[in-house]
Amino acid sequence: MKSTRRSAASAHSWLEVNRQTQTPFYLQIYERLRAAITAGTLRPGERLPSARSLASQLATARGTVDAAYELLASQGYVVGRGAAGTIVAPTLANVLSSRRPAAPNTPSQKAPARKPDTVAAIAPKPFQLGLPAMDAFPRTVWSRLATRRARELTLIGMSYPDPFGYQPLREAIASYLAVARGFNCSPDSIVITGGYQSTLAMIARAVLKPGDDVWVEDPGYTDTSRALTMAGANLVPVSVDEHGLDVAAGVARSAHARFAVVTPSHQAPLGVTLDLPRRLSLLAWAIKAGSWVVEDDYDGEFRYDSKPLPALKSLDERDRVLYVGSFSKVMFPGLRLGYLVLPDSLVDTFARVRHILYRDGSIFIPSVVTDFMTGGHFARHVKRMRQLYAERRGALARALVDAFADRVNIELQAGGMQLIAHLGDGYNDVEVAKRANAQGLAVSPLSPRSVENHRGPALMLSFTNIPVERARREARRLQEAIAI
Amino acid sequence: MKSTRRSAASAHSWLEVNRQTQTPFYLQIYERLRAAITAGTLRPGERLPSARSLASQLATARGTVDAAYELLASQGYVVGRGAAGTIVAPTLANVLSSRRPAAPNTPSQKAPARKPDTVAAIAPKPFQLGLPAMDAFPRTVWSRLATRRARELTLIGMSYPDPFGYQPLREAIASYLAVARGFNCSPDSIVITGGYQSTLAMIARAVLKPGDDVWVEDPGYTDTSRALTMAGANLVPVSVDEHGLDVAAGVARSAHARFAVVTPSHQAPLGVTLDLPRRLSLLAWAIKAGSWVVEDDYDGEFRYDSKPLPALKSLDERDRVLYVGSFSKVMFPGLRLGYLVLPDSLVDTFARVRHILYRDGSIFIPSVVTDFMTGGHFARHVKRMRQLYAERRGALARALVDAFADRVNIELQAGGMQLIAHLGDGYNDVEVAKRANAQGLAVSPLSPRSVENHRGPALMLSFTNIPVERARREARRLQEAIAI
Repeated sequence: MKSTRRSAASAHSWLEVNRQTQTPFYLQIYERLRAAITAGTLRPGERLPSARSLASQLATARGTVDAAYELLASQGYVVGRGAAGTIVAPTLANVLSSRRPAAPNTPSQKAPARKPDTVAAIAPKPFQLGLPAMDAFPRTVWSRLATRRARELTLIGMSYPDPFGYQPLREAIASYLAVARGFNCSPDSIVITGGYQSTLAMIARAVLKPGDDVWVEDPGYTDTSRALTMAGANLVPVSVDEHGLDVAAGVARSAHARFAVVTPSHQAPLGVTLDLPRRLSLLAWAIKAGSWVVEDDYDGEFRYDSKPLPALKSLDERDRVLYVGSFSKVMFPGLRLGYLVLPDSLVDTFARVRHILYRDGSIFIPSVVTDFMTGGHFARHVKRMRQLYAERRGALARALVDAFADRVNIELQAGGMQLIAHLGDGYNDVEVAKRANAQGLAVSPLSPRSVENHRGPALMLSFTNIPVERARREARRLQEAIAI
Repeated sequence: MKSTRRSAASAHSWLEVNRQTQTPFYLQIYERLRAAITAGTLRPGERLPSARSLASQLATARGTVDAAYELLASQGYVVGRGAAGTIVAPTLANVLSSRRPAAPNTPSQKAPARKPDTVAAIAPKPFQLGLPAMDAFPRTVWSRLATRRARELTLIGMSYPDPFGYQPLREAIASYLAVARGFNCSPDSIVITGGYQSTLAMIARAVLKPGDDVWVEDPGYTDTSRALTMAGANLVPVSVDEHGLDVAAGVARSAHARFAVVTPSHQAPLGVTLDLPRRLSLLAWAIKAGSWVVEDDYDGEFRYDSKPLPALKSLDERDRVLYVGSFSKVMFPGLRLGYLVLPDSLVDTFARVRHILYRDGSIFIPSVVTDFMTGGHFARHVKRMRQLYAERRGALARALVDAFADRVNIELQAGGMQLIAHLGDGYNDVEVAKRANAQGLAVSPLSPRSVENHRGPALMLSFTNIPVERARREARRLQEAIAI
């Protein structure tokens, strides 16, 4: 076998981009630099070539290299040093220290018994979206439960699992949904999945034909659109206003879309709630068109001014809603665990798809999560996080107001895990975010989330990983970085 | 929400089949009976309606109900009692004992802390294909390693994993493949997957367009064909003879198929080895046509008369082979863990597909498997199993000869986990297997594995779970059941 990716002989020759594939150059550059860093070819503290010289060497645009460097910075692989250029993050020294650079074309002889893990170990960066409070999870409880399950390898654990996943977990989820999300379902209609993206891919396999229309929210969650596009859907962006998805606009644009993907509790990214008239008209549309509604309830548990709203699924008397839940936000993303509640009429179809195309998922993690839920730890943790997030959200909002006065407009959402800082009209939020992230922050611009329904300029800032006592410091750091 | 599946009010009303879906009736009947058994609506020892009366009630063919009952019997849910009809397996009493029948439409209030698990707990049945020796896995070692990993929940374990999977496991696999399967690859070209079926689905997502031709072996592995069909492929069955896949026949039939799926080490199900001239012509075809070869090396480790052959991938100088490995056969299927070694030119494409559609897989199981491999337990276990399987294979073959004399012709394959018992020409192997399985055995008829290249009548019998001292008893049991 050839192994062009690892031939690190001449300077930067491993950076060679491939003009035959459809992979954007910036992703190719990113991937090769990332590999070089994790392999030790580029060492912590080492300076990367300047974007200008690398662009010239690769005969590509300067902006392409910038984009790759940004992506690396956003994941903690590199840090900007202003005029001194970009260097491999010195903090990686700890996690990479005993990793030898791999010689090209020779697999390692024998891996040492316990290798330190790679850069994923880096703590969440300030303002980073989509992560729960990583410091507040009850790790000791979890480890105790996991250890108990690990002690015994049962014949069940050794055998092929049920295609819909670990039955006791499906029962625990059904109980939880009845209490916390306001609807009853049979454990037999619940499928345990590997998280949101896989669930969406599975839904596409089961109910979508290539070229079918699918409504997505505009602005919306980028990875939803990317997954559906890759699965062959024709995306129909539907505007979101202060009442949530504009159902009439969707009907006008594509009355017979195969399904709609919505985030009714706290719309991603605007945070608005799909109001009751819209909920009812969305369901009425699905019934009339014979279409489906995919409810992505990624953080419905977190609401601060009132009790969490029941899920859209609780209104679903005609069984048109596929409810998608995830443990990534209420526990932690490394679980890679989610679930899907199916309409009865789709159970057989999904049974086939699961058995033939998604026969995955060991029962170990599901069994520990079951114990975590049935032991009461899950409900307790969600309650604690609701309290903690309310505090962190308040502290960050106050700190931002102190740091920026009226130069940004802080919008608190009723729920969720982030807030929105609106910038004055003259600003380019993509550029502003770039400045912040070059300084080790992880803020996200709002405007790229829109297809036609333009919003912004604004920054999305998560508060979940900013302890109250660090809020003022991080707000000042942001203000200094973006100088607004 | 409606919940028609659970409304067990009137007798057998939960058995209602749905004439609107494309799900075959027999699968619907199977699924509903299975649900009724696991829910406790039908209790261990309880008699099922006779196939004739159920067929009449559902206005379907008697054979349809028979097929559903067979499927249930093959999985241990029911057992045939001859003239006394079919009953729910009494052995289920142990595993189902504390499960309450769920009331329709009401989720359980609170699941008990540690529920006994369901029928998956049943031990492998005599002759059942595709399972390693479940009694011979070093569970104590495994539990020790798993406990060590479970004790600490690291920040890495809590975070989103690398899209290609746990890096240390990819390194351990690369080392193993170099030693055991004869080829070198970079850990960066290895993707950790959820097992064979998911891997095939992922390959289809990455390289297949709907309607593309794909070569499959004839006879072949049924679930490969089912997965590819579901993923939109147009199957091209290519005959297998004593040299393996007839490459010239494939070229004649579809010279530009997108890829071919082959089992070169021990063809599934015939057990023949793809010989060197065929290997070379298969690779030459792929190079010329710009096509890919998917090498399913599901049990390449197990060869009894000589050293295991190197993988086809070891000849792949032009990088056209996607090598698919699995831990299901060399460790146990409950791991739900496999891997895919990619040609360099496909790494970027798969990185996109993984990130967007397959962002699944916690690192827990992969981390324990890494320790199992780097600690030397894996190599030791494979070596022990090679020895054990050789013994069990020999003992079963001798016992079958004793039981059947020359009324069946036992064909030992050079490797793999099963042998083939050829029946005389007059027999219908599907019928014979049915008779055996009604008595609690799990033999598989060969003839349904063929599309055009008809083989059989024969039975495929796995020896992996039949200890030497039980071989004579099981052989006699088979002889009595099928009365040949």
